[in-house]
Amino acid sequence: MKRTSRDIRTANRYGVLREIIAESPTSRQELAAATGLSLATVATLVGELLDLGMLTEVGFEDSAGGRPRGLVAVNASGGALIGVDIAETYVRVELFDLALNVLARADEDMRPGESLPVQVVGHVATAVGSVVAQAGIEGARVLGVGVSVPGQVDREGGVSEYAPNWDWHDVPLLDLLSEHIAYPLYLDNPLRACAVAELWFGAARGRGDAVVVNLGTGVGAGLALGGGLHRGVSNSAGEWGHTTLVLDGRLCHCGNHGCVETYVGAPGIMLNLREMSPRSTLLHPEDQTSTINALARGVAAHDPVAIKVVRDTARYLGAGIADLVNLLNPEVVVLSSWVAATLGEPLLEEVREAVARHALKRPFAATEIVLSPIPTDPVCLGAATFALEGALSAVTQKSNRRTIPARSRTAPPA
Amino acid sequence: MKRTSRDIRTANRYGVLREIIAESPTSRQELAAATGLSLATVATLVGELLDLGMLTEVGFEDSAGGRPRGLVAVNASGGALIGVDIAETYVRVELFDLALNVLARADEDMRPGESLPVQVVGHVATAVGSVVAQAGIEGARVLGVGVSVPGQVDREGGVSEYAPNWDWHDVPLLDLLSEHIAYPLYLDNPLRACAVAELWFGAARGRGDAVVVNLGTGVGAGLALGGGLHRGVSNSAGEWGHTTLVLDGRLCHCGNHGCVETYVGAPGIMLNLREMSPRSTLLHPEDQTSTINALARGVAAHDPVAIKVVRDTARYLGAGIADLVNLLNPEVVVLSSWVAATLGEPLLEEVREAVARHALKRPFAATEIVLSPIPTDPVCLGAATFALEGALSAVTQKSNRRTIPARSRTAPPA
Repeated sequence: MKRTSRDIRTANRYGVLREIIAESPTSRQELAAATGLSLATVATLVGELLDLGMLTEVGFEDSAGGRPRGLVAVNASGGALIGVDIAETYVRVELFDLALNVLARADEDMRPGESLPVQVVGHVATAVGSVVAQAGIEGARVLGVGVSVPGQVDREGGVSEYAPNWDWHDVPLLDLLSEHIAYPLYLDNPLRACAVAELWFGAARGRGDAVVVNLGTGVGAGLALGGGLHRGVSNSAGEWGHTTLVLDGRLCHCGNHGCVETYVGAPGIMLNLREMSPRSTLLHPEDQTSTINALARGVAAHDPVAIKVVRDTARYLGAGIADLVNLLNPEVVVLSSWVAATLGEPLLEEVREAVARHALKRPFAATEIVLSPIPTDPVCLGAATFALEGALSAVTQKSNRRTIPARSRTAPPA
Repeated sequence: MKRTSRDIRTANRYGVLREIIAESPTSRQELAAATGLSLATVATLVGELLDLGMLTEVGFEDSAGGRPRGLVAVNASGGALIGVDIAETYVRVELFDLALNVLARADEDMRPGESLPVQVVGHVATAVGSVVAQAGIEGARVLGVGVSVPGQVDREGGVSEYAPNWDWHDVPLLDLLSEHIAYPLYLDNPLRACAVAELWFGAARGRGDAVVVNLGTGVGAGLALGGGLHRGVSNSAGEWGHTTLVLDGRLCHCGNHGCVETYVGAPGIMLNLREMSPRSTLLHPEDQTSTINALARGVAAHDPVAIKVVRDTARYLGAGIADLVNLLNPEVVVLSSWVAATLGEPLLEEVREAVARHALKRPFAATEIVLSPIPTDPVCLGAATFALEGALSAVTQKSNRRTIPARSRTAPPA
């Protein structure tokens, strides 16, 4: 009921730009075929995006005997977008052109204990300044900065409501950042950043329903249902890491027992290894990255302990993903984030087998399970995408005011 | 991307009729306020429904100083709808007027082992004939028959793909029924029937995202997201009963271990009782209904075993519902179906406490947990609602052809 024709219009605008970014140059006819929209609708949307400088006309193609078709492409230099990935131990910032190519990157390490909002904000400000300087971009061309911070966020208010790793409560992060950064700011969390990155540029593009399983230090599932993010009533949907896999199982930092995260997050995988082989040389205490890297190398070298740990982890993961398949019946499940990227194909194969054992046959048969095809940091890319969506909505409202008579702005009779 | 302006139009038409059924008589102004649609849109939709004989004008109300407002109400006698609840041990059929009041009911018991499709179809045909005769309705006024059958269904094809209790595989149920029943037939399953009943007439009406937890012999969760049913890519979403609650726990008939259903479905509750007190007089072996009734009476009489069984069941249920709250962040969770109705408030209170212990604080604070407020069989009501939705779509396409110039039927530029 609450979805209006304005929502549809925005979703269609995203959809058309999404297709053009994926397939540039392209024609209005191809776009209509790819999106299922009418040629007239596509022509209107393309016209708006051309007016806004986000697209350019790039010539014509022959169409077997018909009129030559005009081709459009993303105007990569029409603006820049910045994505900020605030993680537990680092801040990574990437600057993108409008085709979402990375033009510049800056990393800031955070020392253990360096977790005050003012410290984190300082690192972000430094890194954002660095990428703008590296890329030689004028400030006016940066359309927006998307910021991803772990935990629960109030995106409208720009507040980090709860970040468990730092024990942050209701930190007004965007207000703090706006003292250092003059561009429009958009806040969300890594779960949804990864999901929106898959939706625009990855394995969820053009799919009806997708679940993006995020495997890092924390664990979650971004839900892309019906072509858009499912956020829930208070923007906290996707906390799959805190669903129960083993009743009365391992204690989780959320206070519950047996959460999925305690078995398949990086610290959980370390515990799986420690329980199996307490003195394993694969184990780098207090160093998640080195341990996961060592496991990946161990599997490649046929180390039986490494193989067993990945298999056990996949067994937990498979039971948890089977739950998502049974409950949501998605078209695709994407394994994303650094643990999935590091363990790669061997993990994927074990996960597929484990899901097959646990899931109901029919929804399992309808679901594809894949690794994220996104080659760069999906959190930075997703954060930049939130900035792109924000810029597109803001700009569009202006464009509507300019080009569409006021009378047509009311919803058409439905 | 795939959601078109036709989908929006259909959703808006459902939404307006939903409001009128809930609040008759009502004015177009009140409908606009309740649905968030513009007055012009509401006026168009109400006009269509009046043309179709589904509504009637019932006079005017004063509006403090302004023009008197026209009132509309459901035309209860504008047509009849039939809902069929095929369960493991019985077939129940109810006939409704257009305000969804029950006009007639027929129950057919099925003997153990009586599970061939032809036997079930015979019972349904008999009961449908009975309600039509009881209500003295002419055939032409029955707008449709909604049929709910447990398990996985192909609703477009009218096929029961898999019904675990009878080991049905790909039974062409609607084809078989159409040999006996001349009205339009619509197939779905009890999970979605209960969810759509809550969406139109119950606790999910007007809510953004709702989860309807179905507690019967089988267990599932109908998902009403964004004001409509979430069906998934192959119409099997909601199989929450087959998500893992206890890794390597009780064996489930689906072949997996530790499924939610094995702890909180009626047979699971009987097992909870048997494990606690093997010789309890509350236990009626092979009789789920009598056992659940005995537990409800036991709790009312302060029987410590009954109280403990309900508490243990609520603990499992609470962990499972907390998973739904964390993953989906719904506005409301509704406990539906006969086990929930029988155990009632005492179960609800224990479940609320258990969910509070297991769920993350913020999504829990955003979620209300309630018993279904629907006083009649929610499966029959939901099945009849599918018939209403079907009639509304079919009828509307005709109405569009008649009243709207062909040119405006293409999607507006978005």
